[in-house]
Amino acid sequence: MIRIAIDAMGGDHGPEVTISGLQKVVERRTDARFLIFGLAEVVNPVLQKYPAVAAVSTFTHCEVSVGMDEKPSQALRRGRLKSSMWRSIQAVRDREADVCVSAGNTGALMAMSKFCLRMMPGVERPALVAIWPTTRGESLVLDVGATIGADSRQLVDFAILGAAMARAIFGVERPSVGLLNVGVEEVKGQEDVKDAGHLLREADLKSLNYHGFVEGSDIGKGTVDVVVTEGFAGNIALKTAEGTARQIAGYLREAMSRTLMAKIGYLFARDAFQFLREKMDVRKINGGVFLGLNGLVVKSHGGADDEGFAAAVELGYDMGRSKLMDSIRRDLEAFHGRIAEKHGAADDDSVADD
Amino acid sequence: MIRIAIDAMGGDHGPEVTISGLQKVVERRTDARFLIFGLAEVVNPVLQKYPAVAAVSTFTHCEVSVGMDEKPSQALRRGRLKSSMWRSIQAVRDREADVCVSAGNTGALMAMSKFCLRMMPGVERPALVAIWPTTRGESLVLDVGATIGADSRQLVDFAILGAAMARAIFGVERPSVGLLNVGVEEVKGQEDVKDAGHLLREADLKSLNYHGFVEGSDIGKGTVDVVVTEGFAGNIALKTAEGTARQIAGYLREAMSRTLMAKIGYLFARDAFQFLREKMDVRKINGGVFLGLNGLVVKSHGGADDEGFAAAVELGYDMGRSKLMDSIRRDLEAFHGRIAEKHGAADDDSVADD
Repeated sequence: MIRIAIDAMGGDHGPEVTISGLQKVVERRTDARFLIFGLAEVVNPVLQKYPAVAAVSTFTHCEVSVGMDEKPSQALRRGRLKSSMWRSIQAVRDREADVCVSAGNTGALMAMSKFCLRMMPGVERPALVAIWPTTRGESLVLDVGATIGADSRQLVDFAILGAAMARAIFGVERPSVGLLNVGVEEVKGQEDVKDAGHLLREADLKSLNYHGFVEGSDIGKGTVDVVVTEGFAGNIALKTAEGTARQIAGYLREAMSRTLMAKIGYLFARDAFQFLREKMDVRKINGGVFLGLNGLVVKSHGGADDEGFAAAVELGYDMGRSKLMDSIRRDLEAFHGRIAEKHGAADDDSVADD
Repeated sequence: MIRIAIDAMGGDHGPEVTISGLQKVVERRTDARFLIFGLAEVVNPVLQKYPAVAAVSTFTHCEVSVGMDEKPSQALRRGRLKSSMWRSIQAVRDREADVCVSAGNTGALMAMSKFCLRMMPGVERPALVAIWPTTRGESLVLDVGATIGADSRQLVDFAILGAAMARAIFGVERPSVGLLNVGVEEVKGQEDVKDAGHLLREADLKSLNYHGFVEGSDIGKGTVDVVVTEGFAGNIALKTAEGTARQIAGYLREAMSRTLMAKIGYLFARDAFQFLREKMDVRKINGGVFLGLNGLVVKSHGGADDEGFAAAVELGYDMGRSKLMDSIRRDLEAFHGRIAEKHGAADDDSVADD
């Protein structure tokens, strides 16, 4: 049984979409249980329309609902302890839920998650992970905007966090990890990125296979399972890719409506365009994940429909089921052990050499 | 008459492509004159095939040709004073040419350009400018990898350099400029980016219209004429967009060859796909530009064909024709004047208030 805390009020459409999304989850994940938080007068009428969801859920009324445009500081002031967003995070903190899912505003969710769950021991900063569709399937990219800037230690943390998540959701035993850089030669790039590369190579972890540097063009190729970068560059990469996809979709629409022949061609190839649309569909890959905190928080896209919200909930389910938090803890310990061991060994050697 | 120095040896294909590219330029820009540098035994036979090019060119034999994989430091050591790359840059330095074009390796071209031309007075670091196709036309993005990191002053320099180039090649009187950031709210983002925003707003320049922050998704939309960022994030954005475009092209090919109906549809819509290919064609937008140096250097894509190389040469021609260097100098002076004036005025006010 996987217990999932749901902020029913989050997103552009609220309970109509979130509860309807849960209906899809119930049909596909029979041992999912929900702790639903929201305004009773809004949630209850919707819940009555979905008895299968109601049957596996407990509902808690929360008087405050965080607005989609509220500033993080304001949301925290107004919504702490009382909002559906806070309460669903708190359920994870209090071990009543294995994971929390909200389609609410990212900044507020991040601020509340940090404040309520606190950082994991040994991790300095949280990361927002994006699941990125690639030619080969999917890859994880982190951080895509939780924090700006990251030193080499933080990049190594991100590598460990991301690899643990890749193992949990892709089922790869030893995920490959690349550090995003401006060139693949060892001489190029940011100092922190280079230092992180040295640390990862030196540690030679069982939990991940360090690939080396990757460039922006490698993300979509799926060169590695996990792409690690600091939040500024990661956010810009993510938004640029989304923008490029939209731009090309626009060109395609324009091309297909320019001439009668093109329109006829479109009719013949309708199934092909449907296939293409599904490939480019962001709903299916909906769901960013905050890692590095004492609990799992999934951010669903605010504009997602019920299928999109269901995908985010199922992502949370899969992570909860695979006991991701435990494996992150193990991997972090292993890394710190490896580094201590290596440095201990190096010191011994130098003594022996003398 | 615009005099263009050509490194005939650069690129994956050498003179066969570069000289054939010049043939196209000759047909379209009748007052272009070329100073061609390269190995005589390789260039001369090709030049004989293009008498129209030979008629408007002077050729200088250079014994060294910089390899596409050579490290910048190695290229500089081996190719300084002697290589076709160096000599074509030197022609700009010695005012024999208005601009230089090379399809040679980026790192070597950058290193030689910096070494030979030196920075413009008042500019600390050079920028590599990409011409980015957008839904609305084209935008400039800089820096896409000349240097890593940039403080607020350097970002402002980039804004001024980019706006001057946008005026020169797009013919926009007062180009709009955006600073690439992770959010459009004033509270978010990197400190240096925020400070650069304050400086640009305060300066209120005639040469550019400061728009504010833009996000990665705004680049492809063409929200602004000039997108300013430091080289690490800019390079990652560029490569990520290229990767995404390739990825979608792959999906499209797959979709159109999946079923017989799709293949028939493809035949009908062939013209539409041709239109789409042209929209997505990187050859036409080929050519990065180094700005901030005492001279104009255009980098053509190494893998470009003759049409791509011609586009890079014509870009150089357009910049030379518009006297871009002069307008950059004027705009930089105006900025420093404005800032001094504003700060002077502010001091006077505070005195008057007392």
